[in-house]
Amino acid sequence: MTEVVWNRMTAAELRDAAAADAIVLLPVASTEQHGPHLATGVDTFLAGEGCRRAALLVAEKRRIVVAPTVWMGLAEHHVAFGGTITLSLSTYHALLRELCGSILRAGFTKILIVNGHGGNIAALTAMTTDLAMELKAPIATTTLYSLPIQANAFDGILQDQKGIQHACEAEASMMMAAFGDCVRADKLPEAYGPQDARGPNANAILMWKSFKDMTPTGVIGDARRATAEKGEKLFEVTARLLAEKLIAGAPWA
Amino acid sequence: MTEVVWNRMTAAELRDAAAADAIVLLPVASTEQHGPHLATGVDTFLAGEGCRRAALLVAEKRRIVVAPTVWMGLAEHHVAFGGTITLSLSTYHALLRELCGSILRAGFTKILIVNGHGGNIAALTAMTTDLAMELKAPIATTTLYSLPIQANAFDGILQDQKGIQHACEAEASMMMAAFGDCVRADKLPEAYGPQDARGPNANAILMWKSFKDMTPTGVIGDARRATAEKGEKLFEVTARLLAEKLIAGAPWA
Amino acid sequence: MTEVVWNRMTAAELRDAAAADAIVLLPVASTEQHGPHLATGVDTFLAGEGCRRAALLVAEKRRIVVAPTVWMGLAEHHVAFGGTITLSLSTYHALLRELCGSILRAGFTKILIVNGHGGNIAALTAMTTDLAMELKAPIATTTLYSLPIQANAFDGILQDQKGIQHACEAEASMMMAAFGDCVRADKLPEAYGPQDARGPNANAILMWKSFKDMTPTGVIGDARRATAEKGEKLFEVTARLLAEKLIAGAPWA
Amino acid sequence: MTEVVWNRMTAAELRDAAAADAIVLLPVASTEQHGPHLATGVDTFLAGEGCRRAALLVAEKRRIVVAPTVWMGLAEHHVAFGGTITLSLSTYHALLRELCGSILRAGFTKILIVNGHGGNIAALTAMTTDLAMELKAPIATTTLYSLPIQANAFDGILQDQKGIQHACEAEASMMMAAFGDCVRADKLPEAYGPQDARGPNANAILMWKSFKDMTPTGVIGDARRATAEKGEKLFEVTARLLAEKLIAGAPWA
Amino acid sequence: MTEVVWNRMTAAELRDAAAADAIVLLPVASTEQHGPHLATGVDTFLAGEGCRRAALLVAEKRRIVVAPTVWMGLAEHHVAFGGTITLSLSTYHALLRELCGSILRAGFTKILIVNGHGGNIAALTAMTTDLAMELKAPIATTTLYSLPIQANAFDGILQDQKGIQHACEAEASMMMAAFGDCVRADKLPEAYGPQDARGPNANAILMWKSFKDMTPTGVIGDARRATAEKGEKLFEVTARLLAEKLIAGAPWA
Amino acid sequence: MTEVVWNRMTAAELRDAAAADAIVLLPVASTEQHGPHLATGVDTFLAGEGCRRAALLVAEKRRIVVAPTVWMGLAEHHVAFGGTITLSLSTYHALLRELCGSILRAGFTKILIVNGHGGNIAALTAMTTDLAMELKAPIATTTLYSLPIQANAFDGILQDQKGIQHACEAEASMMMAAFGDCVRADKLPEAYGPQDARGPNANAILMWKSFKDMTPTGVIGDARRATAEKGEKLFEVTARLLAEKLIAGAPWA
Repeated sequence: MTEVVWNRMTAAELRDAAAADAIVLLPVASTEQHGPHLATGVDTFLAGEGCRRAALLVAEKRRIVVAPTVWMGLAEHHVAFGGTITLSLSTYHALLRELCGSILRAGFTKILIVNGHGGNIAALTAMTTDLAMELKAPIATTTLYSLPIQANAFDGILQDQKGIQHACEAEASMMMAAFGDCVRADKLPEAYGPQDARGPNANAILMWKSFKDMTPTGVIGDARRATAEKGEKLFEVTARLLAEKLIAGAPWA
Repeated sequence: MTEVVWNRMTAAELRDAAAADAIVLLPVASTEQHGPHLATGVDTFLAGEGCRRAALLVAEKRRIVVAPTVWMGLAEHHVAFGGTITLSLSTYHALLRELCGSILRAGFTKILIVNGHGGNIAALTAMTTDLAMELKAPIATTTLYSLPIQANAFDGILQDQKGIQHACEAEASMMMAAFGDCVRADKLPEAYGPQDARGPNANAILMWKSFKDMTPTGVIGDARRATAEKGEKLFEVTARLLAEKLIAGAPWA
Repeated sequence: MTEVVWNRMTAAELRDAAAADAIVLLPVASTEQHGPHLATGVDTFLAGEGCRRAALLVAEKRRIVVAPTVWMGLAEHHVAFGGTITLSLSTYHALLRELCGSILRAGFTKILIVNGHGGNIAALTAMTTDLAMELKAPIATTTLYSLPIQANAFDGILQDQKGIQHACEAEASMMMAAFGDCVRADKLPEAYGPQDARGPNANAILMWKSFKDMTPTGVIGDARRATAEKGEKLFEVTARLLAEKLIAGAPWA
Repeated sequence: MTEVVWNRMTAAELRDAAAADAIVLLPVASTEQHGPHLATGVDTFLAGEGCRRAALLVAEKRRIVVAPTVWMGLAEHHVAFGGTITLSLSTYHALLRELCGSILRAGFTKILIVNGHGGNIAALTAMTTDLAMELKAPIATTTLYSLPIQANAFDGILQDQKGIQHACEAEASMMMAAFGDCVRADKLPEAYGPQDARGPNANAILMWKSFKDMTPTGVIGDARRATAEKGEKLFEVTARLLAEKLIAGAPWA
Repeated sequence: MTEVVWNRMTAAELRDAAAADAIVLLPVASTEQHGPHLATGVDTFLAGEGCRRAALLVAEKRRIVVAPTVWMGLAEHHVAFGGTITLSLSTYHALLRELCGSILRAGFTKILIVNGHGGNIAALTAMTTDLAMELKAPIATTTLYSLPIQANAFDGILQDQKGIQHACEAEASMMMAAFGDCVRADKLPEAYGPQDARGPNANAILMWKSFKDMTPTGVIGDARRATAEKGEKLFEVTARLLAEKLIAGAPWA
Repeated sequence: MTEVVWNRMTAAELRDAAAADAIVLLPVASTEQHGPHLATGVDTFLAGEGCRRAALLVAEKRRIVVAPTVWMGLAEHHVAFGGTITLSLSTYHALLRELCGSILRAGFTKILIVNGHGGNIAALTAMTTDLAMELKAPIATTTLYSLPIQANAFDGILQDQKGIQHACEAEASMMMAAFGDCVRADKLPEAYGPQDARGPNANAILMWKSFKDMTPTGVIGDARRATAEKGEKLFEVTARLLAEKLIAGAPWA
């Protein structure tokens, strides 16, 4: 099986990939509370694993490399639970600029930042412009689950929710499938919360709110529904949809 | 009629409003190309006017002030057309932080940033967290048209589109209603473009793209459908929905 | 009458102006207390109006555009009165750099920053060097009233003062002439203060001092002398002197 | 076996550790060329593994947690080889400040940054002062191999070198011991370079120099001497010496 | 004779001065071309010497200390001549903020920045507000020659000029009086230039201009008039006027 | 005797030196407590004098210039004693970047930063990379005493110590030799402290510590051993070793 993970490859192998104009996926995530039942690294583990699986599918058709996962992100809303790491917007911007800049200097031209953490989405959307201008390069951004959600591809898999909530049926299932020792089975019975903690105006008028004020367990959704089988299916469809797009040349073609 | 516009009020009047815990709306917008038919100040004029109309409705029930409109925003995607002003993300962040900080120092506690420009949305969403942390205050953000779009309130008014596009039926109608001398009637016949210029994957995978590559006219939507009557109705419903929320105490209550 | 105001012009009209090497005036001002009788927007209104009038005179001879007025400036010394917005020096610098940078990117080469607020003068003088170096462009700066004061052109108009004080005979007169609904006539009887609040060493040794400690009314000068007729004359001579310089090619020729 | 890795622990487990005043080790490393035979993640893998092993020894006596490894560092001198990620000094400073700040906010008081990359040493030494002042906390820094080198503890293990070079006998041995699939055995015969590439004045007068100009293979030292057995011994002594210090209360007692 | 120069005093002597609420003068200057006849350190030497002489007079009445001279300032306009050091506005601001911050931390409360370089004046005026706000301390600023110029005290001493030009009768005289080995007597015959190089609009409309385009010799004024006797008198009156103000309690009383 | 000190030279002399590709030494030091017996300017005086002496030796063979001494550095660890000036790491970085940038713009290509203060060493080592990248120039850094210490050249001169401590036998001797009026002879009997205040783990695990907690006198070493004769010898060997390297072409050849 081809090695696709940047830091498991030698410099010569990476130079070779760059010379072949390989795509670089840069997984970005977070380290933060994920309820009573899941480790704080959930977003980091899932983003890295989702990218790795997609890349292995892509690698059959074209060169691709997965950079190490940026495990620190924007998670102020989880700080009140403890166990959470968060950056300011400006440091996060500087970090991504210099990581992408390094990847470009290493000879690659096609970078897709693949996000696995809800709290990063708005910032990444905003930075998509600034990174492109600052680096004069077609940096693209996505969230790992955007393609399947857009395609309603999780509908047949999940019972209670349509997309990804937090420490939920979907995240717990994927953790069970791939990182079982980071799931505390004995805490599952209490691992649920509201299905949508923000209320009807949330999207229309935004105001910062601690997750703690939305869900005392730190969970949005219901992890009691989680199974490893669901997790495997979620990974499969997520990786496949991203891989198909990349093989087809998106977003650069 | 009560004066609600900050810079048309004296310091004593503003001290009085602050003492009464008045809400402050801070309209933020942009100065950028708006097709062949509309002035570059569209977002600035509409954001200010929308806030002013909403505030006049609110003022019957509770104190409210409308700060001057921040006419510079994030508009890199329009630069290729000329006539466009844009800021970097970090300067925009610093500017809003210091404006909100000044409003707080003037004695107000409830600030709602009301955005009138699509290109600002993601940045404002991201900054909602940072501004709240940096200023230790419940800064809220919204986009002027979010409440009516969420309520499908434009459906009976607009012919070709459901929400706000760019230099489109909706924006041109509101400009006709309130700023008619900033509409070039003779250019209307050419004032149309695609209804959605980004394509099916736009929301799933983002990559910076100049508006010029999406629409040669600079228009998304069809301004040929615009009328002043539609514009008046759009203003009415937009102002009313925002006013109702604010009167009801949202988003702070 | 030619349209000269940037955000009332379309992108195509601005591209055309840039192609004709039009001058751009960028009015910069402030939002701050102006005594019991004047709205906080005085400097913003007067700077914009002064530039607009000068530009209309220039426009008969050469192309010129007036950008929207930068209504936020350096006004820490007025904060104690309430109603005041102020920026840090570094954010103000970044803001002006990016505004001028955008104007240059829009194809213009001749930018004159026209200031209408005393508190901005030193910073603008200092930034004249940095902006020129950073943008590699001949950015010029002036204060709206510098030319008439240098020419003693206000002498025959004003009764009590030779130049511009604060919320004074001159500012109140111009507000009466052009923005009468932002003057509180009933407060005029108390709208006076010392003619020079800083004392004999003020220019030799500087130390930050709140306006509140210099003048309890927030006025320097005597607005009881103000009339709309004086205001109209002040505008006329101010606009004419600036226009004459610009028509003659200053400061770039 | 106790779990000591931050992102494999739940928020509740981390809150519990913080309440018990657990030490936090923050491994910092790099992603950079490591000769023809080793993956670019060497420093990241070894720093994380060294900390994990030390922490497991400590955990028998007192609470300790190992944060995720900061895999991006200061590696400009390796960029010419490709495959290398590097940050500016100011972004690296901001990143570490906010990571440590988050750890403090999570309730921990004792942070030891454990470095696994030569290029970070000077910056970490300098930042030890600034981090302590900025965060008002006793942040300590060390390099993973400092204690054994100070104690000459590698002398009986290594054949050709006394300390840690680059992609050398020591690093290759530890990679063989713990991350064998990141070692390219077929490249070992060419995996050697000078024992000291900087020359006699290197420590007295510093000037930036690309590693490429010091060693064409990217290796300093001789990886042909590497064995998994040596690697295991190096890990053992490194982890033990650090654990002993921490158990004894250093550096806070 | 009392020692008044900070870096010639021991820490204990400075603690003692701080305990006695001594004034601290912080001379700020520049290193830049000063015509064919004067060393590039003119402003640095004169600012330090002027402060030292004033301080010796003050010291008879109250405690005072003179910090080392900040020899780097804002001198972009002299760069074209060579031999010139210049800072950006933002670095200069940060430098002065941290120097004043250190002086405050050393226990002093009264800081007067005494400037000896024309190019720093506007920036110092602007920073007077920001330094006071940032440090919450009554930082005062002046230019060494402001008091004598305000008092027309140089009139009987200088032949050709009323104030201080550049590398001129006044500066050359003071250099002859106190730093004779930094004057090249053989270059004096060519050491003259225009008396005022900026022209009639200079104060009304500012635009960056290299000194090289104003005066090919780098001199404004006429150094051929310089004598050591004049220099001694200039120093005497300058030091005396500043000392009198400080003894009288200005600017803090 | 050739003049080698930048600010004692005219711009023309500096242009001439730059045209001859002269080396520029930039002495960097500190202003900080130096025990009961030495002035706070010790590091500044010694760095400047050491560079000047070395430059005079070099000047017989090749052109060289000594910039003014950067008297502000990183001295947080001395602040508790009073009399101390310190900068943040980021301001220090910006300052050195702009000073070196100015020297390059003045036409010089070979800059050696010569440090005279222990607290700057790590930062300068780290910045050696960033300055070279930012300025695209071969900026070199050294500490004044590095060459003699590397060569054990102080061994026959000093009685109690091998290198440079703080306010010690070596520093006090050099001050006696060249700046006798900055030595308080009557305080010498109490001018001693521990020979090594950091303890056995200091180099292995770093944690910020005030000098005050290491030595109540502020001295590391024993200044009672100091004599002017030793000081003269220390200067001689220090200057000679640096001069020899520079004459031989290091570090650029």
